[in-house]
Amino acid sequence: MRQAGRYMPEYRALRQKASFLELCRTPELAAEVTMLPIDLLDVDAAIIFSDILVILELFGKEFDFIEGHGPKIENPISTPEAVKLLEARDAKGGLQYVAQAIRLLLPRLKVPLIGFCGAPFTIASYMIEGGSSREFHKTKNFLYTHPDAMHQLLTKITDATIDYMLLQQEAGVAAIQLFDSWAGVLGFQAFHSFSLRYLDRIVRQWHRIGKVPLILFARKAGLFAQDLVQLRPSALSFDEQTSLSQIRMITPENIALQGNLDPELLYAPIPIIQKEATRLLQEMSDDPGFIFNLGHGIKPDIPFSHVKALVDLVKNYRS
Amino acid sequence: MRQAGRYMPEYRALRQKASFLELCRTPELAAEVTMLPIDLLDVDAAIIFSDILVILELFGKEFDFIEGHGPKIENPISTPEAVKLLEARDAKGGLQYVAQAIRLLLPRLKVPLIGFCGAPFTIASYMIEGGSSREFHKTKNFLYTHPDAMHQLLTKITDATIDYMLLQQEAGVAAIQLFDSWAGVLGFQAFHSFSLRYLDRIVRQWHRIGKVPLILFARKAGLFAQDLVQLRPSALSFDEQTSLSQIRMITPENIALQGNLDPELLYAPIPIIQKEATRLLQEMSDDPGFIFNLGHGIKPDIPFSHVKALVDLVKNYRS
Repeated sequence: MRQAGRYMPEYRALRQKASFLELCRTPELAAEVTMLPIDLLDVDAAIIFSDILVILELFGKEFDFIEGHGPKIENPISTPEAVKLLEARDAKGGLQYVAQAIRLLLPRLKVPLIGFCGAPFTIASYMIEGGSSREFHKTKNFLYTHPDAMHQLLTKITDATIDYMLLQQEAGVAAIQLFDSWAGVLGFQAFHSFSLRYLDRIVRQWHRIGKVPLILFARKAGLFAQDLVQLRPSALSFDEQTSLSQIRMITPENIALQGNLDPELLYAPIPIIQKEATRLLQEMSDDPGFIFNLGHGIKPDIPFSHVKALVDLVKNYRS
Repeated sequence: MRQAGRYMPEYRALRQKASFLELCRTPELAAEVTMLPIDLLDVDAAIIFSDILVILELFGKEFDFIEGHGPKIENPISTPEAVKLLEARDAKGGLQYVAQAIRLLLPRLKVPLIGFCGAPFTIASYMIEGGSSREFHKTKNFLYTHPDAMHQLLTKITDATIDYMLLQQEAGVAAIQLFDSWAGVLGFQAFHSFSLRYLDRIVRQWHRIGKVPLILFARKAGLFAQDLVQLRPSALSFDEQTSLSQIRMITPENIALQGNLDPELLYAPIPIIQKEATRLLQEMSDDPGFIFNLGHGIKPDIPFSHVKALVDLVKNYRS
């Protein structure tokens, strides 16, 4: 989860030279940043340095990341007409730089490389809000008021997402993680109609054309674990609110479970981090399908030494 | 849920004359504001106009509400020593103005009056953060680093909360709602240790000394519905993420279920609000223990006419 980032002095040094988007769009730089956690932390897998919002390029949507404010998307969607006009070009055309970064990385890596993209509801919410949001009231207003247009938007994003996943697969990633970061803001009915339905479409399609595992992460949606399990992705990733050992009871053995240490725990002193991480490792120590992970991304002001201590503990753990 | 508030022109007019805290602390004004939704919306119950933070007065903590920024608490707690020094005086001494507002209201009301207070974890998080928070990292750091002090803090708040509930009961409320607004930010283990345990203490104690029903609301904690049901409060209130008809399957008939229309829906056009509210009413129409409510509070910029249309629909609904 956000392996490379501002909590690393080496990353901050690179950001002196290039903006976040320049790092994403320049294959050599994206590859260099992707390598940082491998070189500095010795993690077991690399995750391509990018952002879920790069897919907006396929729709011709301009966007940028404003320091301290997060993403800003030009001309957010506010009408059904705007959805009708939306057209995605091929990922091969618009996101070749991601494929190039993947290809540059493969010969340099001794560990698997994970690709990723945003889930349709999450991408749609950015397109409608025009940026980050706390309450998502534009998105909710849009989906309640214009459900048909919302479904049309989600369908267009779903198609582009599958295209983008194929691009990453063809470039050589060993797995792809799908992030539904904002699915948890939806009510019960809305989650099923506007998030789950499109996760289902992607997973079904991936069962036909995917050659690499698909890891599905829907944040703050542990309440819907049963629904997510029924999609049968290769792996499910959960945030810290769930108990992975409880989720295992309803999850077949051939679906891996990934997660879910509270990322806020990394603010605590190292012995506390070690104690809580050990508790999670013990809870899942009998589970061959467990992948240790955080419940969400690492915050920029987390001390690097805390992250290093966590990775060392996990790598040296023997049950 | 926040029946009286800035979405009402009449409330905004009163706020020209007095600050939010002055309204809370002046029994005549608090009573006047409490009456607004009765007079203007004709709702089936009144909820005393107050704030969960008034309990801080018992601990001698200064606080205020800053326009557009939410609450600000002086000298937030950051050390175990600060917890040790914390002492609560009697609710009878510190929160008499709430009891007086309740007494003023009883002869004026033809509907039941509901009292309320914050749950221990939620109040503790305000004391530690010093205000509202998005990530709660001071609170989490404190509870992970100083679990014993956190338990001491929660115990002190629990005792003061029960005392405050008794004060409201003696003044004459017909029911009390306990709000654990921020329980949902905790990870699985932390929720059980630092939120649920204290909800359990309060509900157990209330089974002994309470004469009026206790309604328990833990926001974004639908994942823990089973645990909450096991506490056996008189009623459970849920936010919009849960399906109340699913919750009913695990909830005995003698526990009422309250909720849970998405408050963001109130931004949508009236016919959409009516459609979605009807869907919820139909879902629960066979359930004699259902109390229609929002999933959380009404936002200040919601049009009053939308709230009025919702109340009219619910009051006129016949299954």
